[in-house]
Amino acid sequence: MRRFVIGQAKNLIDQTRRHHKSLRLLSLLAASDSAPVLSSPRLFSSSSDMSGSGSDSSSSSLPVTLDSLNPKVLKCEYAVRGEIVNIAQKLQEDLKINKDAYPFDEIIYCNIGNPQSLGQQPITFFREVLALCSHTALLNESATHGLFSSDSIDRAWKILDQIPGKATGAYSHSQGIKGLRDAIAAGIEARDGFPADPNDIFMTDGASPGVHMMMQLLISSEKDGILCPIPQYPLYSASIALHGGSLVPYYLDEASGWGLEISELKKQLEDARSKGITVRALAVINPGNPTGQVLAEENQREIVDFCKKEGLVLLADEVYQENVYVPDKKFHSFKKVARSMGYGEKDICLVSFQSISKGYYGECGKRGGYMEVTGFTSDVRAQIYKLASVNLCSNISGQILASLVMSPPKPGDDSYDSYIAEKEGILSSLAKRAKTLEEALNKLEGVTCNRAEGAMYLFPCINLPQKAIAAAEAAKTAPDAFYCKRLLNATGIVVVPGSGFRQVPGTWHFRCTILPQEEKIPAIVNRLTEFHKNFMDEFRN
Amino acid sequence: MRRFVIGQAKNLIDQTRRHHKSLRLLSLLAASDSAPVLSSPRLFSSSSDMSGSGSDSSSSSLPVTLDSLNPKVLKCEYAVRGEIVNIAQKLQEDLKINKDAYPFDEIIYCNIGNPQSLGQQPITFFREVLALCSHTALLNESATHGLFSSDSIDRAWKILDQIPGKATGAYSHSQGIKGLRDAIAAGIEARDGFPADPNDIFMTDGASPGVHMMMQLLISSEKDGILCPIPQYPLYSASIALHGGSLVPYYLDEASGWGLEISELKKQLEDARSKGITVRALAVINPGNPTGQVLAEENQREIVDFCKKEGLVLLADEVYQENVYVPDKKFHSFKKVARSMGYGEKDICLVSFQSISKGYYGECGKRGGYMEVTGFTSDVRAQIYKLASVNLCSNISGQILASLVMSPPKPGDDSYDSYIAEKEGILSSLAKRAKTLEEALNKLEGVTCNRAEGAMYLFPCINLPQKAIAAAEAAKTAPDAFYCKRLLNATGIVVVPGSGFRQVPGTWHFRCTILPQEEKIPAIVNRLTEFHKNFMDEFRN
Repeated sequence: MRRFVIGQAKNLIDQTRRHHKSLRLLSLLAASDSAPVLSSPRLFSSSSDMSGSGSDSSSSSLPVTLDSLNPKVLKCEYAVRGEIVNIAQKLQEDLKINKDAYPFDEIIYCNIGNPQSLGQQPITFFREVLALCSHTALLNESATHGLFSSDSIDRAWKILDQIPGKATGAYSHSQGIKGLRDAIAAGIEARDGFPADPNDIFMTDGASPGVHMMMQLLISSEKDGILCPIPQYPLYSASIALHGGSLVPYYLDEASGWGLEISELKKQLEDARSKGITVRALAVINPGNPTGQVLAEENQREIVDFCKKEGLVLLADEVYQENVYVPDKKFHSFKKVARSMGYGEKDICLVSFQSISKGYYGECGKRGGYMEVTGFTSDVRAQIYKLASVNLCSNISGQILASLVMSPPKPGDDSYDSYIAEKEGILSSLAKRAKTLEEALNKLEGVTCNRAEGAMYLFPCINLPQKAIAAAEAAKTAPDAFYCKRLLNATGIVVVPGSGFRQVPGTWHFRCTILPQEEKIPAIVNRLTEFHKNFMDEFRN
Repeated sequence: MRRFVIGQAKNLIDQTRRHHKSLRLLSLLAASDSAPVLSSPRLFSSSSDMSGSGSDSSSSSLPVTLDSLNPKVLKCEYAVRGEIVNIAQKLQEDLKINKDAYPFDEIIYCNIGNPQSLGQQPITFFREVLALCSHTALLNESATHGLFSSDSIDRAWKILDQIPGKATGAYSHSQGIKGLRDAIAAGIEARDGFPADPNDIFMTDGASPGVHMMMQLLISSEKDGILCPIPQYPLYSASIALHGGSLVPYYLDEASGWGLEISELKKQLEDARSKGITVRALAVINPGNPTGQVLAEENQREIVDFCKKEGLVLLADEVYQENVYVPDKKFHSFKKVARSMGYGEKDICLVSFQSISKGYYGECGKRGGYMEVTGFTSDVRAQIYKLASVNLCSNISGQILASLVMSPPKPGDDSYDSYIAEKEGILSSLAKRAKTLEEALNKLEGVTCNRAEGAMYLFPCINLPQKAIAAAEAAKTAPDAFYCKRLLNATGIVVVPGSGFRQVPGTWHFRCTILPQEEKIPAIVNRLTEFHKNFMDEFRN
């Protein structure tokens, strides 16, 4: 990694001298190879700094070396919090001390779907209930009625009544508190119009641990494959790598708005089988991440039939189910689609992942979510239960929030009007931001960008000039990473290179969230547009 | 598992006819093998029911079968939430409906260190801060000052000021919020008298995910071994099994109060090496779980020297650091011991695990904790950081609580007196309960029990009569599991068989928490004593 930082710094020195203010960054990057010379001496001693000067590998006789680590860990990549984010964090630290040293005032994190970090406010009702459940003594104070909505107080009592001893500080059942799972199952039923069983719900600390659990269950060796969309959310490639399986790619068709073709699934499945890989599951992300498409119901039916016919578990990442921005598309859960086709418990193995981190709620830091596990035999489910038990239970605050997002205030409730206003304010603003950013991206030279029908991202394709590709090669970095680092350096905007999500070889993309607050979007568009023009002027063939 | 339930039911029918009320349990257990005949038809459809009637494995053509699962998952065992707890949960459900059907009124869960589930109240100051951080609008209301202590308000502001945008709903840095890690590092320094670096802290959802992360890092195959105490907390055996490594046992000496002998470590290390196993780490649980011993400082020095000499990572499970009940013992962190020996960053790889679930706080459901990682090279630490990043971050409520338990109110703070009263009330009561239960156990025929110097458990040795062992064999169950099931059946008390923790072959134990509220202890002692007498009368040779 040390080589990367040196190479990157030298590359930047060679190529961006005309940006006077960039020199600060260059010295900052170069300094990481020698003694820190900056005003912030700790800048490079963070453990997230891969070239850190803290405990130096060269001078150590310690027993643990890279060579001795689990090679699956070494193989794993997670670009959403990778190299560019590390650079951004250091820039942000240095910005505090050296305000005038950069051509921007702040770092804007568009690398990750983390709405509240960019100013989105939490839904008041959810936080009222959470506070009351955190400090239950409040419920016995009359002053509380002046501070909280009446339905938040009612809901807190209802939740506490479902917890043995009202103990929100106790480990729960390994799948989560039964009463909260009842609320989630009722919410799924209301959404789908088909029954949901609280015993099918496994509550998790966000969706990620659920995905890991299923990968751990299904993958024994590299002979076990999981069909994943390309581009994909890197949780999938990371968790398949950590569990030692094979990622079997299927390519989404960018030209048709990231279309998911059954013929492509078949082709890739057959190809994997011909290599001796047993494909265990198909992962589908709907709405798509990083691609933002919303699947048509007819397409979902074909996918269900494909899984049934081929004996695949359908892993349905449905964490963006509330994030649909276009009138011509609607979210349908795979469970609803399967049940509407007449397929029940004994026909198809289906796991649906949901998270409190996304939607209009965006409660990323609370780490809540669940997976609805249907179609598994009781002995297999007992193994899932055991895996859940080894980590005891997911956190109760996250469990409470997961129950709330699946059973929000209803018409007539004290909070209902303000809840709806907050929810619709967030979703309509996200739709506007998605549209504005998409249009701006499509105006850039050599850039095409599908619309974000849903989710929280745009994933534009950049037709990079040969000169830029050659410069990236010289800097030993992927061309889209080269572009993204230059973007960060010039604007403070953090995006993730398409190579972190995988993409059709020879194409280059980046993922950019639509999450900066609405009033900041025009400035972001201006900075992006100016940067892109300068970049193209520098590298145009 | 179906066979187990049938076998157990038949066994119980054969052997406990004279307990009239037990017949209810027998029919309940027997019913699980055919159509439910109980008043609660859902009793056996829970997914945690291994003989569930929900989706039946025999009638299925579903693609996922036990044979096709990851064998590491199948191999993993976690007795703390295993078979006996499943039976107890069903009994508890049935008790609600059939109050008079059992010889007890309630199920008392002594299987797991879950204090608040048994009535322990949370520390008020911690919950005040948590509520204010959950619903930050409260901080702007004047009525809040009448409801909260002034230092909880100050602390909430201080915490919010450390979170970018005061966004407690945002993903944090992968290691946890920097300001909270500062507070934890300061708490470690105050505890140890040696410096601690916030960049060494990785905040986790309880201690378990930290242990998993280290196992994932260190284990590549079954040729990688981890030295673990026997008896051990089953998180270790489970996570080593899940990551495909080898558990290298070292036996604690029950006769000397669960002494940890360096000669035993050496013997087992050499034995493992002779089998081609590369031993990567030594896990030490101090205070001990399930064994409750507190290591002497001199013993800890020997352990540190052993790890240094043999090139082992020292995995120090120090989650019970606040739970010491005897005046002649004191907790010393391994980091303090190592530093006091003059060993620094470059001398020894040391990971210390801490959790908010234990101590006097017992905030199990909040899932907070951290590991302090010292002595690893920067490139290895970058891999740990990557593993943390794949799950984004631990939950912020747990992070906040972890910072609070390491920096509680100080003399002069508004909450200080009530905080100290609550803390000391809990710890002194736990000491009393430990003593009472230990004395009661030592009075039982054929039972010897070391004192609980610390932690939350007693681990008595039961000298089971041959007739009982033969009956257990006939029932195809381990003798201590047989005893524990009979105990549950007769008293409603849930304990965990020693076989779930491993033990010297031919010895039998169970683990019982000291956590039931003080006023319940006499009744528990009576029930336990009466049961044991009846059991011995039935099986005495």
